[in-house]
Amino acid sequence: MRMVDVIIKKRDGGELTKEEIEFFVDGYTKGEIPDYQASALTMAIYFKGMTQEETATLTQAMVDSGETIDLSAIHGHIVDKHSTGGVGDKVTFIVGPLVASAGVPVAKMSGRGLGHTGGTLDKLEAVKGLQIEMTKDEFIENVNTHKLAVAGQTGNLAPADKKLYALRDVTGTVNSLPLIAGSIMSKKLASGADSIVLDVKTGSGAFMKTLEDSEALAREMVNIGNNLGRNTVAVISDMNQPLGFEVGNANEIREAAEILQGKKVEDLRELSLEIASHMTVLAEVFATYEEAYAALEKNLENGKAFEAFRNFIEAQHGDTSMIDDLSLLPKAAYEIEVKADRGGYVAEIDAESIGVAAMYLGAGRATKDDIINHGVGITLNKKIGDPVRAGEALVVLHSDNEQAEDSIQKVKEAYQITDDKVDTPTLIHKVIK
Amino acid sequence: MRMVDVIIKKRDGGELTKEEIEFFVDGYTKGEIPDYQASALTMAIYFKGMTQEETATLTQAMVDSGETIDLSAIHGHIVDKHSTGGVGDKVTFIVGPLVASAGVPVAKMSGRGLGHTGGTLDKLEAVKGLQIEMTKDEFIENVNTHKLAVAGQTGNLAPADKKLYALRDVTGTVNSLPLIAGSIMSKKLASGADSIVLDVKTGSGAFMKTLEDSEALAREMVNIGNNLGRNTVAVISDMNQPLGFEVGNANEIREAAEILQGKKVEDLRELSLEIASHMTVLAEVFATYEEAYAALEKNLENGKAFEAFRNFIEAQHGDTSMIDDLSLLPKAAYEIEVKADRGGYVAEIDAESIGVAAMYLGAGRATKDDIINHGVGITLNKKIGDPVRAGEALVVLHSDNEQAEDSIQKVKEAYQITDDKVDTPTLIHKVIK
Repeated sequence: MRMVDVIIKKRDGGELTKEEIEFFVDGYTKGEIPDYQASALTMAIYFKGMTQEETATLTQAMVDSGETIDLSAIHGHIVDKHSTGGVGDKVTFIVGPLVASAGVPVAKMSGRGLGHTGGTLDKLEAVKGLQIEMTKDEFIENVNTHKLAVAGQTGNLAPADKKLYALRDVTGTVNSLPLIAGSIMSKKLASGADSIVLDVKTGSGAFMKTLEDSEALAREMVNIGNNLGRNTVAVISDMNQPLGFEVGNANEIREAAEILQGKKVEDLRELSLEIASHMTVLAEVFATYEEAYAALEKNLENGKAFEAFRNFIEAQHGDTSMIDDLSLLPKAAYEIEVKADRGGYVAEIDAESIGVAAMYLGAGRATKDDIINHGVGITLNKKIGDPVRAGEALVVLHSDNEQAEDSIQKVKEAYQITDDKVDTPTLIHKVIK
Repeated sequence: MRMVDVIIKKRDGGELTKEEIEFFVDGYTKGEIPDYQASALTMAIYFKGMTQEETATLTQAMVDSGETIDLSAIHGHIVDKHSTGGVGDKVTFIVGPLVASAGVPVAKMSGRGLGHTGGTLDKLEAVKGLQIEMTKDEFIENVNTHKLAVAGQTGNLAPADKKLYALRDVTGTVNSLPLIAGSIMSKKLASGADSIVLDVKTGSGAFMKTLEDSEALAREMVNIGNNLGRNTVAVISDMNQPLGFEVGNANEIREAAEILQGKKVEDLRELSLEIASHMTVLAEVFATYEEAYAALEKNLENGKAFEAFRNFIEAQHGDTSMIDDLSLLPKAAYEIEVKADRGGYVAEIDAESIGVAAMYLGAGRATKDDIINHGVGITLNKKIGDPVRAGEALVVLHSDNEQAEDSIQKVKEAYQITDDKVDTPTLIHKVIK
């Protein structure tokens, strides 16, 4: 088989066989197929797409390119959750304990990565002492004992995806639906879960800006999962503004803990219950979505979800006093209000700009070597639909610098205020099974 | 400027600016832009095309990537000729002397390359002693004295094209009209001619199989030439069967010499006169095509064209006795007739298969290191439209092996014989100015 023939076949709109896809992924991982042929193929895929079968085969080949995590020693049906990423997305910290409180094991492998705020691990490390490095046996024991553990991703998972993603990033083929879906799903599948719930964001602050594109991505991923023997559900949720009121690291842990203590932050709580309900139904702990939802809501009220969270923090050597008294979490030196120039109704909050404002404060990483400042962040006082008076604070910046001109500017750019009343955006757009 | 943004712009159908194209060609030539970005861009160009202006800019940038040949010391208007390649195409050997006989300087730089038969240089070397290595001064003096010289291509012409072509070859983007046109024209433009006549082949034995595709390529090249200040004319000629009756190296030199001596081999003579007429009109030696055609036809009859050929051979130290007595040209040991299995009319002669048959005999190179056998080749006894009896020889193989099973098989595959009368194919399909 010659790689150039595989490229030409795809270029001409042909459907690649299992052998052809495996030849490519295997050869590329081993370095036998050069980058320049891989980039030509991915550009051809960008234009010509892939069938469901091709996409599933590509995904499986990327899984097979490296190690896979064997979680069979964990008791029960393991459900993983993945978000396509958004600003203020701390759903994982709520959903993990919530699902664990219903007896479903949550074995979460996470990364750090670049971004406006830290990754899952960085945010958790806002809790003093919390350890995310552990042996595989400790990880499994923690899950079996506490139903919840979060560890740094180790092992060489889906190296073909890693290599291909880095290539796509510099050759203009990031934005290809089958390649995005395959990339996300290959990492999830290599991580060993039995079922998967995907939180696919849609809107101005999401990778996919339109509902149509988000739905297409969701369907693609659900198809891959189901094709490869994992029950997969995708929830398409709104990212036209940040989720909840807090953006940062300690900020987000605090807000998540408050939800687990029963606080009612409308969009954040609602989305967490939605995701957790699908997860527990897939784990066959509840028969229906409605039953799951009611039981999980109860666990937010009766302290069980918070208890699961506290146990997890304790098991991973985190300072539980910070959880018992959330005011002990890291804090920035200054609080700076960004005020509305005019009165009216909040019509838009560009999540991307809020994220960049948080990164300017030090909440995220622009390059690999940047150090996260856990205490800085942004509290939104106003969300879409809220009335606002001129001079009223739109947000509070938690900053370690007395001035934060860049961030203030970004926040001002993010907010659009109109005279007319504005509806609160729909939160859950669609569920794809 | 970032290369990935240039790729994305083209991917999304944008028109690249002069700066963007030069950034790419310059960076790629210097090795600052990697192959994997170049292959992604060329695949995007494959799908999205290029405007006339983009194509001309790309071509000029490829010319500027290396040396250009300065032919200003040659007296007169220099017209170059290029063929997109076909089987039995010995037009250059006729057109060169013919145009020279009308006083137009022909300064031909040629290569060897891979192919079913040798390149221009290999074919000429069938004449014992003929030298194609010479200094630039000798070359120019030869042209000024004899109006015709052929030299091996030296210098680093259009290295960007060379590098890009090699990449396209293994990444499935050879078949892109602007890239093909730019590739051909960059080499022609770097070679220093004032005007260019292109012989664009069309049909089963050509790179472009349909008249539509051939015409599109011709227009693209004429546009580039005219855009970059060279008068350019393209003749679209038929390649649904080999040109003339001879395929090989010595064979083709012999047939060309016979035409120059006044022999009337219909298609070959006609196409040579056509090309030469356009060349001499572009050189402003004749006012009209008709005038040129009549004068050149006369030079085939009166010995002037042959004299120009003989002078050129002599000036380059070739053994003129082989030209005075064509039977002295290299010959193979055996003549093997390939006979018709049935009677009827020749409907098709697949030029590609005839070419492969000649290569099997040793007339061409499959790999760079193969040695050309100048004496072997194929004489076609029958061409499309000819009546044939069962058992009559279709071709004669000139072989140095008594058996030539592979070649015989290929020739048999090439010929299609039908019961119905068949028309001779049109030779000149179109002229594009």
